[in-house]
Amino acid sequence: MPEWAFRCYVPGMTDARRPAKKAPMREVLAEAAFQLFLERGFEQTTVDDIVARAGVGRRSFFRYFPSKEDAVFPDHERCLADMTAFLAEAVDLEPVEAVSDAARLVLRMYSANPVFSVQRYRLTREVPGLRTYELSVVRRYEQTLAGYLRGRYGESDDGALRAEVIAASVVAAHNNGLRTWLRSGGEGDAEAAVDHALGMVRRVWGSGAAGSAATSSADGDVVVMVAAKGAPMWRVVQQIESVIGQD
Amino acid sequence: MPEWAFRCYVPGMTDARRPAKKAPMREVLAEAAFQLFLERGFEQTTVDDIVARAGVGRRSFFRYFPSKEDAVFPDHERCLADMTAFLAEAVDLEPVEAVSDAARLVLRMYSANPVFSVQRYRLTREVPGLRTYELSVVRRYEQTLAGYLRGRYGESDDGALRAEVIAASVVAAHNNGLRTWLRSGGEGDAEAAVDHALGMVRRVWGSGAAGSAATSSADGDVVVMVAAKGAPMWRVVQQIESVIGQD
Repeated sequence: MPEWAFRCYVPGMTDARRPAKKAPMREVLAEAAFQLFLERGFEQTTVDDIVARAGVGRRSFFRYFPSKEDAVFPDHERCLADMTAFLAEAVDLEPVEAVSDAARLVLRMYSANPVFSVQRYRLTREVPGLRTYELSVVRRYEQTLAGYLRGRYGESDDGALRAEVIAASVVAAHNNGLRTWLRSGGEGDAEAAVDHALGMVRRVWGSGAAGSAATSSADGDVVVMVAAKGAPMWRVVQQIESVIGQD
Repeated sequence: MPEWAFRCYVPGMTDARRPAKKAPMREVLAEAAFQLFLERGFEQTTVDDIVARAGVGRRSFFRYFPSKEDAVFPDHERCLADMTAFLAEAVDLEPVEAVSDAARLVLRMYSANPVFSVQRYRLTREVPGLRTYELSVVRRYEQTLAGYLRGRYGESDDGALRAEVIAASVVAAHNNGLRTWLRSGGEGDAEAAVDHALGMVRRVWGSGAAGSAATSSADGDVVVMVAAKGAPMWRVVQQIESVIGQD
């Protein structure tokens, strides 16, 4: 697990490395807001209700959150920053592995606080404005991953196209695994669900060069593949992978 | 080109098959709105401005459009309906071909009116609210494609995961091609740009079984593939494909 994973802020998660003197006003506000959203509904809760519950002035809210929606997702901005920082240093990783690891930062932010994450998931399903907000955030993650991949693949020769398709695939796979876990009420192994989903993308798009070179194969090893001519391409890929041992 | 392509409504596009007697109030409103957005900016234009320009009452606007944003994208609802109808009948097509053809309905809606589409693209880049609206629409297209693929692949055995990853890939590829064309100012061949982008997804995810069986191969044909053990997976796929002639 990369060091970055721990920097993501999650309501209710204590972080011993955060400076103790910093007033947790932002967290107090986020928690007051979320409790009110659960009690009264998102639309029925005003910013005035939130600041009254938190015991602060109205201006304090807007100092920390541009909108009510932002208070529901107080952790994404920091996670986006962490993702960007992680990718900036991921120069030696195989590109698809790098963006998969970057996506796992989002998962860990959710799985660090299952109760909050599941409650928020249910709230978001009920409030169209929150779903829209979430789509914008997901798009920013996707663009962050795509930007990194463009840097690795280059803008020309379909590099940008490949970057965007892979970024979308990683996000879709990550969210499939995350949703599976959220729908289960936060039971089971969230990381396993996401690893499994990301594995499908890696098998199709990952070069696997770094991994296999490091583990078992010498330069110049070859694989001989025999497949029925009408076989589905993804099955062919699975077969190849089982032969060259990427998993 | 499927028959469905022609049903998508595009401002400024005449459609001889639409009943002539139907009052084009919706189109008049959309055109008035769009001209005002270009002249004054989206935020600066009110619904009152729009109905004044169109010469109708305020209620007429909300009869056709739930919001100002909807008036910027008057054609997506119909296109979504067309996509759903197209997919409902696409039972014999190879699944990835089917969703690629479905995505092309969106492209044709844009390419039928290049001037409008390019102006709208530029407007959307400038107005955050329109970008958010567009994300919601894109998500609905993606969910439509994923729903179809789940039906084809089945919910179990990773069918849903594969459906979501492929739907996201098709949307990302389509939008890459579409954006390339929009950024060029609507010059060049939009269909070619999107076909090229979708080809990358088809090569990786399409089964190709129907195509190759229909054209050249007899049952039981085999392919022998030799590849360096560290070769990137997508290159291996490209090589296989060139041998079995999927393109």
